[in-house]
Amino acid sequence: MKLPHGYRYAAEYAGIRKQEKNDVALIVPDQPANAAAVFTRNVVQAAPVQLARKNLKASKGRVAAALINAGNANCATRTGERVALASCKAVAKALKTRAEYILPASTGVIGVELDPGLLTGPVPKLVETLSTDSFDAVADSILTTDLRRKTASEEVQFQDGVVRVAGMTKGSGMIHPNMATTLGFVMTDAAVEPADLQDILLSATERSYNSLTVDGDMSTNDMVLLLANGASNVKLSHKERKVLQEVISWVMESLAEQIAADGEGARKLIIVRTVGFKTKDDARAVARAVANSPLVKTAIAGSDANWGRILAAAGYSGVLFNPGDINIELQRVPVCVNGLAAEYNEDELKQKLNEAEVRIRIVNKRGGKGEARFFTCDLTEGYIQINGSYRT
Amino acid sequence: MKLPHGYRYAAEYAGIRKQEKNDVALIVPDQPANAAAVFTRNVVQAAPVQLARKNLKASKGRVAAALINAGNANCATRTGERVALASCKAVAKALKTRAEYILPASTGVIGVELDPGLLTGPVPKLVETLSTDSFDAVADSILTTDLRRKTASEEVQFQDGVVRVAGMTKGSGMIHPNMATTLGFVMTDAAVEPADLQDILLSATERSYNSLTVDGDMSTNDMVLLLANGASNVKLSHKERKVLQEVISWVMESLAEQIAADGEGARKLIIVRTVGFKTKDDARAVARAVANSPLVKTAIAGSDANWGRILAAAGYSGVLFNPGDINIELQRVPVCVNGLAAEYNEDELKQKLNEAEVRIRIVNKRGGKGEARFFTCDLTEGYIQINGSYRT
Repeated sequence: MKLPHGYRYAAEYAGIRKQEKNDVALIVPDQPANAAAVFTRNVVQAAPVQLARKNLKASKGRVAAALINAGNANCATRTGERVALASCKAVAKALKTRAEYILPASTGVIGVELDPGLLTGPVPKLVETLSTDSFDAVADSILTTDLRRKTASEEVQFQDGVVRVAGMTKGSGMIHPNMATTLGFVMTDAAVEPADLQDILLSATERSYNSLTVDGDMSTNDMVLLLANGASNVKLSHKERKVLQEVISWVMESLAEQIAADGEGARKLIIVRTVGFKTKDDARAVARAVANSPLVKTAIAGSDANWGRILAAAGYSGVLFNPGDINIELQRVPVCVNGLAAEYNEDELKQKLNEAEVRIRIVNKRGGKGEARFFTCDLTEGYIQINGSYRT
Repeated sequence: MKLPHGYRYAAEYAGIRKQEKNDVALIVPDQPANAAAVFTRNVVQAAPVQLARKNLKASKGRVAAALINAGNANCATRTGERVALASCKAVAKALKTRAEYILPASTGVIGVELDPGLLTGPVPKLVETLSTDSFDAVADSILTTDLRRKTASEEVQFQDGVVRVAGMTKGSGMIHPNMATTLGFVMTDAAVEPADLQDILLSATERSYNSLTVDGDMSTNDMVLLLANGASNVKLSHKERKVLQEVISWVMESLAEQIAADGEGARKLIIVRTVGFKTKDDARAVARAVANSPLVKTAIAGSDANWGRILAAAGYSGVLFNPGDINIELQRVPVCVNGLAAEYNEDELKQKLNEAEVRIRIVNKRGGKGEARFFTCDLTEGYIQINGSYRT
């Protein structure tokens, strides 16, 4: 993996989670980077989310480090604010910068007090061991119920030189669109002003994290952070900045896809595509309803071409359409034409539905140009097993 | 069970479902009854739903019979309209009435053609065997993945005599609020005008079927029908009609509770109560979000007092509140006070969460007088097993 220049990483085990597996991490640009972030829209927001938003404002979109911990969400606790603040101060001190340049992020169980010592204690060691090689170690340390590391990177040749983008993310439950969904950290060595960076992030978030659902639950801690440190020394033209925006979207779409594929208990990535609806919002609403339907997700788990459930989910999405105008394809096989059953080979389709990636395509033949895509996963017994005993 | 006077019932096996278990049924008032109905709000509506709505309008709210089948939804099929129409005509002919006095209702798989002969063939036998004793047989015949018969009844002594109300319902998956949810048939021998009957039904539906969620999926076939045939010969005062409305609500709430308790794969009924929100709508939105959260439902399945998930679900309900004002009780045990962890005995609470009925109470201490209650069930491996292979 080609990583952006000018970033160092470190991860340690602080004892926040029971399992002995790194649970605190630092991401540090060599110079404070321009930053943009999106946060959960949940009314209940964890202390680190609140502080990160505040710090980003105070620093005018400059970040000297992100401090991340897994195993405790630092949410709905008496000491949440104090703990988050103390941890930023500890990092600022070790890096000889100011506390508002540090962004805290936490993930894990809600409502359990977090011992501030667990978070501040490992800071000197983290700073000491910062290395360009520890990207994967950090990507591993932020995982909770995830089974797989989730990273993505791209490299682009511009007029003036090469620019790199790399990202990491975590999350497999409590994932739902319309928010920053899960923790995500995306770094580039391009030089981009904070305001432009925020535009890039919003646009890429809509196409990636906000087009993703695992279980419809929206977390209290979610944040996606985009850093641009300019270490590439490449000057981008206006047109090239559009390309960079596209590339950052690709990286984030890959991360979102990986989250869906690693959804709690999931065996299959499901990609729902809607075409021909009146507006993009309509197309998104239909795709979201289908992607979020437990009946669709369990049918796919069972490799059952139960397109009636897909049509029914589209029908309660809140979007008006004529059922007679709807075609549905599963794995490119037409299963519903004009709202009615198509003829297809059930056994062959069942085989195709056994694949690790399942594509659902819903076409409205008389709607318009609105298109959308949503990522989700099948719903299996595994989800229940994981979530029936997460805390205990 | 005391049944309303003046209704007869019949059920037969027509071969619509593979399993040899009654799958067609008739409910017949001795004289055409006044009727009110609520229907699914899904854009995709089954042929019998469309025809029932049409017939009810044409007959000005009068019903001579309801013809119900299980095993096939008669939805998204080429011949749906024709099949539904033919079945109503067959019943009308056998009962010597007009087709618009017959209400059809279907439940089962979507998108599979229904042989009209299977529906019209058994009509003469059904009419021949109509009996006041077959209420339970009909209640059994409409079940699909349900494990338990769902019926409820009440009897009230009014000034002028006794009035009876009895209902039956089906449904354990594809259950979601804000529609007529599932099939429900409620009969009374009170005399009520159609317009009043519709008011009574809407009010009772909000408190019962529309306060119920199993999996967030909204069906294409759902209908709740309320019949009043006046066979009690009891004249109700205005005040007494309010009492009747209350009693009909009780019957429908009991039916809704039974649906939640028998939710696909469910081992526990969950009753979510919200208190102290600004408006009733706010209270309902919070209760619905909590009742609909897979993370809450799996936690309850695992008897895990994971109140952080409850708080998080309330937080994404779209309702604004201050997390510091929220108290949460599980089985009457305070687990969260002022948005923070309360002290409680974890083992004792775990025992209490093993019970068949789990109560979640969410109190907003500074909101207002808005209250609501929602019925749901825990989410277990059983739900996945049932829905991964429903069609096959």
